[in-house]
Amino acid sequence: MALKKKPVTGMRDILPGEMEIRNFVMNQIKETYKGFGFSQIETPCVEHIENLTSKQGGDNEKLIFKILKRGEKLNLETAQDEKDLVDSGLRYDLTVPLARYYSSNLSQLPSPFKALQMGSVWRADRPQKGRFRQFTQCDIDILGDASSMAEIELILATTTALGKICPNNAFTVRINDRGILRGMALHCGFPEESLDQVFIILDKMDKIGSDGVKAELLESGYGEQGVDQYLELMTEIKKDAEGVRQLGQILEQVLPKEVSENLAFIMDTVTTVAETDFQLSFDPTLVRGMSYYTGTIFEVSMEGFGGSVAGGGRYDKMIGKFTGVDTPACGFSIGFERIVTILLDRGECVKSETIKKAYLLEKGLDSDRLCEIMKQAMAERKSGVQVLVSQMNKNKKFQKEQLGKEGYTEFVEFYRDALKGN
Amino acid sequence: MALKKKPVTGMRDILPGEMEIRNFVMNQIKETYKGFGFSQIETPCVEHIENLTSKQGGDNEKLIFKILKRGEKLNLETAQDEKDLVDSGLRYDLTVPLARYYSSNLSQLPSPFKALQMGSVWRADRPQKGRFRQFTQCDIDILGDASSMAEIELILATTTALGKICPNNAFTVRINDRGILRGMALHCGFPEESLDQVFIILDKMDKIGSDGVKAELLESGYGEQGVDQYLELMTEIKKDAEGVRQLGQILEQVLPKEVSENLAFIMDTVTTVAETDFQLSFDPTLVRGMSYYTGTIFEVSMEGFGGSVAGGGRYDKMIGKFTGVDTPACGFSIGFERIVTILLDRGECVKSETIKKAYLLEKGLDSDRLCEIMKQAMAERKSGVQVLVSQMNKNKKFQKEQLGKEGYTEFVEFYRDALKGN
Repeated sequence: MALKKKPVTGMRDILPGEMEIRNFVMNQIKETYKGFGFSQIETPCVEHIENLTSKQGGDNEKLIFKILKRGEKLNLETAQDEKDLVDSGLRYDLTVPLARYYSSNLSQLPSPFKALQMGSVWRADRPQKGRFRQFTQCDIDILGDASSMAEIELILATTTALGKICPNNAFTVRINDRGILRGMALHCGFPEESLDQVFIILDKMDKIGSDGVKAELLESGYGEQGVDQYLELMTEIKKDAEGVRQLGQILEQVLPKEVSENLAFIMDTVTTVAETDFQLSFDPTLVRGMSYYTGTIFEVSMEGFGGSVAGGGRYDKMIGKFTGVDTPACGFSIGFERIVTILLDRGECVKSETIKKAYLLEKGLDSDRLCEIMKQAMAERKSGVQVLVSQMNKNKKFQKEQLGKEGYTEFVEFYRDALKGN
Repeated sequence: MALKKKPVTGMRDILPGEMEIRNFVMNQIKETYKGFGFSQIETPCVEHIENLTSKQGGDNEKLIFKILKRGEKLNLETAQDEKDLVDSGLRYDLTVPLARYYSSNLSQLPSPFKALQMGSVWRADRPQKGRFRQFTQCDIDILGDASSMAEIELILATTTALGKICPNNAFTVRINDRGILRGMALHCGFPEESLDQVFIILDKMDKIGSDGVKAELLESGYGEQGVDQYLELMTEIKKDAEGVRQLGQILEQVLPKEVSENLAFIMDTVTTVAETDFQLSFDPTLVRGMSYYTGTIFEVSMEGFGGSVAGGGRYDKMIGKFTGVDTPACGFSIGFERIVTILLDRGECVKSETIKKAYLLEKGLDSDRLCEIMKQAMAERKSGVQVLVSQMNKNKKFQKEQLGKEGYTEFVEFYRDALKGN
C-alpha cells in the first residue's frame, strides 16, 4: 500500500543542503559553549501533561500535541473529556523540561549548573510561511549563580558563538534591567499599578517609534509631562556603562544603587574582555515580553537579520515555582531556526572547507581496477577530502548537475577502456 | 505549583557525562559517512498514522505513541474508537520515514541517494533495564544502486566509523546472502515452503549452537540425512571468498552463479580496500530476522560487546511497496544506544583530548582583577582549553569533587588578597 508522501501538516523534511547548515550552526554552538564550561543535556521530547499544563507556558499550552494513553489506561467509554484520554504531550519549549531536569537530577549536577540544550519542540500553531510545528530551540542557562558572572559569561559565550557562525555580520547586544525599566517609569510619575501597561506600549518602540509610543501612552490617559520626561530621559541618557551610572544617580529615590552599578559592571567587564567585535549598548526601551524576567535582560540583533537572533535575561523566580526551591537563573535563547533560514536564503555565510569530489565509475570495471580506485578514495578520505564513489549514470550531465547542487566541485570519471574524457 | 520531577515512564534525562559520549559517537559517525559522500537528512518525529500502521512495521505498530487530533477535528462525542481520535503518531523507526522522504523529495535528491539518519524513535514497550521508550537510531542507506558498490561502500564506511569509535576493539563483519541461504537449504532437500521455518530455527544458532539447531530441525520433522548434510555443509565450507565461490559450484543446480560470484566479489574488494583492521567472514548461518531483506545481509560484532553492534542488508522490494516505484536499496543500522551503553559502562573508550580547567573565583574580586582573569580564560579557550569560570562555593572541596566528575582535572583558584593556596 502506498504511503502518504508529504510530511504531516506543518512539519517538514530537511534536505541535505539545509542539514549541512544546521550541523554547522549546531557544531559552532556546541563547541563554543563547551569551551566556556557549559554541559550539553537532553530531556525526553515527551513530557507529563501535568507539567505542560502548569500555567508556566502561557499561550503555548494551547498548542500542545497531546499523546493518547495506551493499553488499559485508555478507556474511551468512560472518558468525559480530553483530560481523560491523554497522559503526556510533546514539549513546547525547553524551559519546562529544564526545570524538571534540574530538580530531578540536582544531586548529580555541579553548582552552578551551566546547561546547553538543543532540541526539537512542537507547537500546533496555524501553519504559515517560515513557521513550522516542529522546530529546534537552543537554550543556554546558568542555574544557581546569583552573581553577575552569569550574565558576563552568557554574553561572552553567546557573542563568541554568533561571531563564529556569521563572522562577517556586525552585531549589537542591547542590555537593560527590569529594575531600571521600573525605576525610570516610577521616576517619571507612572504609578506602580500602570507599569505592565506602560511596558507593553514601550515594547512596541521598534515598530511604532518614539512618536507612536508617545501617542499610545497619551491615549491611555497618562499625563503629557510625565510621558515627555520619560521619552526624553530615554533619548538623552548615554548608552554606555557611564550612562547607566548617571541614570543610577537620577533614579536614586526609586532604585537601589546596586541595580545600576551591577548593570554598568556587566557592561564594563564584557567590553573589556570580549574578543569578538560587537557593539554593547544600554537600551532603556528594551522590555522583552516574558513576564518571568527579574533582572538583567538582553537581546542580540545582527545586521541584515531584521529582528533579534538571540535574547534572554535573568529569571530568579521561575525555577523555584516549578521545583519548590528558589534558584537564581539566567539564560539565553538563540534563534536557531531564524539563523539557519537566513544563512540558507543568503547561501553565502557557510563555506565548507572540505573538498567534495565525486568518482563516477563506468559499469563493468574489472575487480583489480575497482579495488585500485576505491583504495584511492580511501586515501583521499583519510586526508580529509569527501569522496563520493558512484556508478556513472546514463545521463552523466544530469548526474553531475545534481551532485553540483550537493556541493561537489570535482568529478573524476573512470572508464573501462581508454580514457574518453574528463 | 510543583512539577512531576521524574521523566515520563520509560524515558530518561541524559546527564552531561553521557551526553559527551553520545556526541563523540555521533560526531564520529557523521564525519565518517560524510567522508564517504553520505548526506545527513532529517524527517519529522511525528508521522501520519496511516503510514505508521501500513503493516510494514511488524510488531512495532502495536507500540505507537499516538497523537490526539486537535481543535474541531477532535470530536469525543462521535468517536467510536481510537482511530477516530488520532491523526498521527511518533515514529517507531527511521525506515518508514525514509521511504516517505525519498518518494516525496525524489526530484531534489541525487541518484543513487546515500542517506545518513540519526534521530529519536519511540516505542511504548514495557519498560525494562537498558531499554527505553525514546531512543536514538542510526540508519545509513543507499537508495537507487542495484550494484554491489552499495554493499562495498556501506561495509567500508561502517567499519571505518566503528574503528574510530572503538579503536581498541577487534571486530568481525559476518556476511551472507539470502539467495545462498535459500540455495543451501534447497540443496539439502528442504522444501521451498519450509524455508521460513528452517531459517527461524537456524537463526538461533548463536544461542543454542549446532546441536540445538539440529535437535529443533529434527523435532520439526525434517529428515536426519538432510539436516546433517545441511549442518555439515555449513561447517565445512571455508569462510572466505574462495569458500563462497566453491559453495557456488556446489549449489549450481539451485542458485544462479551470479549470486555467489557477487558475494565473493564484495568480500574480495572489501578485504583489499579496507584500511581498518577487522575480520570479514562468510557466515552461512547468518539469517537476520527481518523478512524484507532480498540479497546480501551483514552483521558486525565487536569483541567484548556480546551480540551485534550493527547490521543490515539489501532490501530491493521495500521502498517500492511504500512508494509504488521499485527502488534497489541497501542499508546498515548501527546500534547507537548499545554502543553508548557499553562505552559508558566501561568508562574507558572515550578519552577527551580537551583539557578541562576550572577557575574558581572568591567572591568580591575587584573589577580590574576580574577582567584580567576572564581575559586569561578567553585566551585559554581560544587555544582549545575548556575553561569553566565559577564563583568559589563555600564548600570548595565538594565543588571540586563535583567538577572532577564532569572531567575537570585542573583547578585554578583566585583570591581577593594574598594567595591562600592552590
